Parts: sequence; C-alpha cells; structure tokens
Amino acid sequence: MTTTAIKGAFFHLLDDPSVVGVTAAHQYEPDGLLVLEAGRVTAFGARVDIEPNLGPDVSRIDHTGSLIVPGFIDTHIHFPQLDMIASFGEQLLDWLERYTFPEEAKFLDPAHAAECADFFLEELLRNGTTSALVYGTVHKESVDALFEAAFARNMRLVAGKALMDRNVPEAVRDTAESGDRDSRDLIARWHGKGRLGYAVTPRFAPACSDEQMTRAGKLLAEFPDVLMHTHMSENLGEMDWVKELYPDAKDYLDVYDSFGLLTNQSVFAHCIHLKGEEFQRMAEADAAISYCPTSNLFLGSGLFNLKEAEKYGVKVGMGTDVGAGTSFSLLQTMNEAYKVCHLKGHKLDPYKSFYLSTLGGARALNMGDKVGNFEVGKEADFLVLDMAATPLLERRLKNCKSIDETLFVLSMLGDDRAVEHTYVAGACRYSKRK
Amino acid sequence: MTTTAIKGAFFHLLDDPSVVGVTAAHQYEPDGLLVLEAGRVTAFGARVDIEPNLGPDVSRIDHTGSLIVPGFIDTHIHFPQLDMIASFGEQLLDWLERYTFPEEAKFLDPAHAAECADFFLEELLRNGTTSALVYGTVHKESVDALFEAAFARNMRLVAGKALMDRNVPEAVRDTAESGDRDSRDLIARWHGKGRLGYAVTPRFAPACSDEQMTRAGKLLAEFPDVLMHTHMSENLGEMDWVKELYPDAKDYLDVYDSFGLLTNQSVFAHCIHLKGEEFQRMAEADAAISYCPTSNLFLGSGLFNLKEAEKYGVKVGMGTDVGAGTSFSLLQTMNEAYKVCHLKGHKLDPYKSFYLSTLGGARALNMGDKVGNFEVGKEADFLVLDMAATPLLERRLKNCKSIDETLFVLSMLGDDRAVEHTYVAGACRYSKRK
Repeated sequence: MTTTAIKGAFFHLLDDPSVVGVTAAHQYEPDGLLVLEAGRVTAFGARVDIEPNLGPDVSRIDHTGSLIVPGFIDTHIHFPQLDMIASFGEQLLDWLERYTFPEEAKFLDPAHAAECADFFLEELLRNGTTSALVYGTVHKESVDALFEAAFARNMRLVAGKALMDRNVPEAVRDTAESGDRDSRDLIARWHGKGRLGYAVTPRFAPACSDEQMTRAGKLLAEFPDVLMHTHMSENLGEMDWVKELYPDAKDYLDVYDSFGLLTNQSVFAHCIHLKGEEFQRMAEADAAISYCPTSNLFLGSGLFNLKEAEKYGVKVGMGTDVGAGTSFSLLQTMNEAYKVCHLKGHKLDPYKSFYLSTLGGARALNMGDKVGNFEVGKEADFLVLDMAATPLLERRLKNCKSIDETLFVLSMLGDDRAVEHTYVAGACRYSKRK
Repeated sequence: MTTTAIKGAFFHLLDDPSVVGVTAAHQYEPDGLLVLEAGRVTAFGARVDIEPNLGPDVSRIDHTGSLIVPGFIDTHIHFPQLDMIASFGEQLLDWLERYTFPEEAKFLDPAHAAECADFFLEELLRNGTTSALVYGTVHKESVDALFEAAFARNMRLVAGKALMDRNVPEAVRDTAESGDRDSRDLIARWHGKGRLGYAVTPRFAPACSDEQMTRAGKLLAEFPDVLMHTHMSENLGEMDWVKELYPDAKDYLDVYDSFGLLTNQSVFAHCIHLKGEEFQRMAEADAAISYCPTSNLFLGSGLFNLKEAEKYGVKVGMGTDVGAGTSFSLLQTMNEAYKVCHLKGHKLDPYKSFYLSTLGGARALNMGDKVGNFEVGKEADFLVLDMAATPLLERRLKNCKSIDETLFVLSMLGDDRAVEHTYVAGACRYSKRK
C-alpha cells in the first residue's frame, strides 16, 4: 500500500472553539507532516515527531510555504440553481416563483442535469469544497446526475430530490406517492455507495402536503442514517404563510416536528427568525442549522443570530446556499458571516469561522467521525492554500503575526484563487491554473 | 495628433436613473465606437454612425466581445490603511486606536509612503478605479508620495493630508497651525497640477479642535475649487462622542456646518445615521455622501439608507473605504451595496449601482464635467471588462438576456478579475496578466 507524506503548515479544529475555548479547539503545525494511506490519515503532527516513524517507501509531497486546512464543507447548496445565481431584485417567495422554479424545471432532462452536475462539482472543488449537502430538483434525474458525477470524483456528498407536491408550478411538482417512491429508489441505488449519502429533502413546509410530510417522516424513521434537509424561518413572508397553513402549530419548527422531521439527522437552512424556545428544542433533538450569510443578505432575509445558537448548543455549519448565495467560496462566506455577526454585535473569530466551515459542518451533517479535520483514521479531504493568490493577499499575509490573523485575513480577502490544490480522499482533484 | 478608435460594446450613464428613469439615464451600444484624441473623447456612439466620419489615419483597437464602461470612481478610501485591511474584531473607535493610528504613524517616513503609494495606485488600476478621493495620514509626506505616484500615472485623483490635532496619539497629531500650513503647502504644490486636486481633510469632528475646524473652513472659502473630505455619522459611539463634545450643536452635520465645512465641495463619508433634516440641509448645500457598504458591514456600523438620500436629492457616490472596507473592487462594493439596500427593503438596480460607481461618483467629487462617462470632451478613463473572468462568470453571463442582467451579474459575481484593461486619459495603464 502506498504511503504518502505531505509536508507543510497545517491548521485544523479539534472541537468547537465556542465550547472548549480557542486554545483547546485548534492545532497549528507550522512545520507539520500529514501521512496518508488509501485515502485516510494514518499519522499527523509536527514533522519532528512524525518523520522518524516513517518507513522507507514513502512518497513525499512538499507544500512548504502553503497553509493546509481541511476541505470545506458546504451544509446547504442547490446544484440546479447554478445558472440563476445573481438573479435580480426579489425576496424569497417571489424569487422562487420568478427565477427558481422555471430554472429547476429544466432538470427533467438528464443531459442537462449531467452537464450542470459536472460544472457544479468542478466549481465546488475549485473553491475548496470537498463535501456538501445538496438540493436536487423535484426530478430524480437531477439527483442521479449529481450522484454519478460525485461518485466519479469520490466525494463525500449528501443529496436528495426535492419533495414539493403543492403550491408550486406543475413542472416542478411531484405527488406524495411519487416523491416517496423516487426517494426510496434513490436511497436504494445511492445511499452508502462510495462516499455518498442521501437526504430526505422536503422543499419547505408550504410546498409539501401533510401526506408528503408524513411519508417523509416515515422514511427518516425507516432509514436512520439518512439525513433530513429543508428550509426554515428564512423570510417573514414565508413565516406568515406557514402560520396561515398551520394555524394550530406552536411555531414553524413544530410543523416539522409534528411530522417526525426534527431529529438528530435534520439540517435546517437559515433559521434567521427562530425564537429561543425553538433553538432549545433543536438543541434537545440534536438537529443542525445551516448558516448562509451571503444568501440571507442577497435575498434581504435578515441576520442570523449565531450567538443564540451557541447559547442553546445547537449544531451549526456554514452554507453558501447558491443560487441565492452569491459565492461558492466558503472563504467569501466567512467574510459575510463576520459582517452579519458584527451587525448583531458579536465578534466572529476566525477559529469559529473555520470551525463552521470544516469540522462544524461535518458535525452538522453527522459526518464528524469521517471528515472535518486531520485526525488519524479520517478521510483525507484537504486544501492547499495559496498565500500569494492576489497581490493584496500576499502583501497582507506577509504582515501577519499569528495564525489567527492569517486565518482572518484569508477569510476576509480570500476567494477561489486562494485554493491552490483540493485533495479528495488523498487524491488531488483540482489544481489552480497558473 | 493621433486619433484612436476603440471598438466594442459600451455602457455608460448619462444621468441619475433615480431622477430621470433608467431609459433616459443610460446608453448601451452593443456595437459602438469610442474615438479619442489627446486623452479625450472626440466622438462616441454606434459604430455605424461614427465610422463614416473617421479620417484615414486612425489607429484602431478592437475589444469586440468585451464590455467597456467608464472608469470606476472611489469616493472614499484611505491609502495608508492598505496594510491593515482585514483587521479583526473592533468597531470604529477601537479599530482606530488599536490598528489604524499605529499603522498611519509609519507614514512620516517618505520611503514607506512612496512604496505604499505605488502599490496602492496599482491596486486601484487593477480593480478598474481611475479616480479616487483619498485620505492621507496627518503627515504631508504621505500626500506628497501619493500625488507624485498619481501624477506619474496621469490619474484624476484628489487627496489631502488628514487634519487631526486632538484626541489622537502624539505620532499622528498635528496642530491647528501646522495642519493649516501643511495643507496650504500641498495645495500650492499639487492642486491643479496635471489631473490632481486637493481636499481639505479633517479626520472627523472629535479629532479636530475648534481652531483647526475654523482654519479648515477658511481654507475652503479661500480655495473654492478645493474639496472638503471627512467622516460623519458612521458609528453610534462616535455620534455620542460628538454630542458630548458639542452639546449645543443641533446635530452632527451642524458641527461641520458651524465651521463653514458644509458646502457644495463637501464629501461626507458614511452618513448612516442621519436624520431627514440633515439629508435636507445636505441637499440644500449640494454636499455629497460617500456610501461605503463593505466598510459599514465590516465595522458593524449599520445600514446606509440610500432611498432617503435619493428622496432628499443628496449627491451620492460609492466608496470602498479601504482599509475598513474589505475590497478595492467597486464591483464587489456594488454586491454589498445591493445587499444593504435589500435589508433596508429597497431594490438597488444595476443602472443605479453603475451610476454611483461612475458618473454619480464623479458628480459627488464635482468632476462630472471631466469624467464619469463617454460624453464628447471628457477625459477618456475607461475599463475593458473580461466577460469570461471566471468559469462561473462566463457561464452566467452567457445566459444573460439584457444589458441590465449583464450588469447585475457583473456586480454580484465580478471582482478585480473582471477588469481586463484600465485606460487612464486614453492610455492603457493596466492589463490583466493572462
């Protein structure tokens, strides 16, 4: 078996800095060594500690001068919205009607879906995203195309076909029965194949009948290692609509809960307007939130309260939410996450930002035992960052006096250009064109 | 005299779209011709109209496939803050104390100032910014260095040494007398030289004694074509401080006004927390606002109300406010301007965004008769945009069905990479490395 040893400076998170403090939460190895076999980490640490134990037949890769971090994890993104990113002028509900649903209708065509899936995954890798929780369209063809493309790249990716059987145009509508059947079919064919996983994916409560929600809950109960992925409390208009549709529900979260969709496998995108009590119940259920700042700003949805989520101990990961989000880059997402927190009066430190974008994201998707950092036994998804990606970034990074300053500058000034190489399960799947 | 004819698609603004409507405000020439002599526009329009009138000795440049727009105008930026962009965690007043003033203290050294000035101006050109209103430090050496570098590039640039004689560290403090003397000296040597202009530049009211403010007002009266450049109503802590220092002033604007600093030459950065009455008085004085969204978000300062400014008819331009701003790119600034407006419940259309970043900025700096669009007689500052700057931008732009969609996508997904060439007074001063 080939052993590979990668030399460079390494940074990763071992735990949530808001819980254990930044010192205990992170490890920085300015002269480190990462040892891989069969796509997994077999040793990691300071070079001086690791090097003596290496056998003679080790293939070596030298990334001295670069910073190596775990692959980014995008906990909420819509692959069929690739071609409508940056659509003008609407808030959520009108934006869905005017731009999103017509675009998603095209994904009945497997050839279109396949072409988009390839571009989409290349874009993820170009931005350093090695894992993602992805919405398909209502058509199972879209998810087939995505899984096929992700399987070919050996990516740890979770996706699901959108369930949406009411209040949406005919072309993007399923039925409770067909949605259930297609989900089961996709689970049977893809869940657990290679590094792929399935997520039961109700669009959002207003687009799913009670019967569809009930079946979704049953699916989740039947397949306990399948995720649940949906939207919640993103927009005030959406929330009014939910109140109208479910006048007896205690709140928006209660709607999902009442159908068995609030579990430790559940990932709720946005959660901007949650009450304390909802955070509390999410924490008790060990459900997760995907924080999507570029999207929340782009759609004028509002400012997520990360401190509240921390206070109640709810799992949080970072999401781009392309195509309402305006960038595939988790670095640019960290930039806007910082700004949103600052407007709310909180300081989002770079340890936490990188946590949310790596290990925190992995935990939100219940894959924290598999990816998210360089712990021995984990799958080797990681990025080599280019510290001279732009003239400004190079100049500014040279002045940095600490790893946290370096990380913060990367998160404010970095973008896809800062990703020099993306490794997936030990294999280099992307290298920047020089 | 050499005549140059540039072929391509052109877009520019003729007036403020919020005032005259988008149709009357813009001109789009998908197959246009821009004719230059001695750095000025001598003809512009559809190629079919312009070409027959061209003489035989015309040098031709073909930018078919690109979109050509007027050079961007940055109405508020601090060149000495280049090396402290992306400094973590503080709001305005602490950020000034902790990061800004120590950094600015270095600019007493002319060699340091000269090195930074060169990098700074190259960064402006790389981002397509051809004109800017720039803060120096308190040291006249900083402004000398900047003017020298801008003169060498023939840029239309306005700058001033910061006046700050109280409540700041010794190393960045002048006196009312020395501040006045240095300003006069800089005006004598630089104002009107080439394309350069001077701005009397009080740091902000809390950092300037009454005597310094009085002298600043006298300078402005004495040199009526010199600009006045300062900060106002950026941060709530700053505003409380102003109230404490000037208990008898009606409001923050009144402080500047009482010293003769509210004129049609005045440019006030931020103005986030202005009352309607203040907008009203600014409009009456024909003073201008610099809207700096990336900075306002980065420092957690708040959300500027562009609609209020429009309602009262106050001149507004776009500013990056580097180093509190997080990007030199006016395209990225438009991205965040859109988001700020959306959070305030307004739709910032791309006509207006490009207006604010070109002609609107020129008008805010009272140079609307010289730059800002392609009108005959104006100085030929313009950009050639790369419509394939990134894989995502290329893909998305190919789907655009109208010029406004194209502009909006450029403003959401574009950055420095979208600038292929920057022309200053007809000369190409920057070309992207391929």
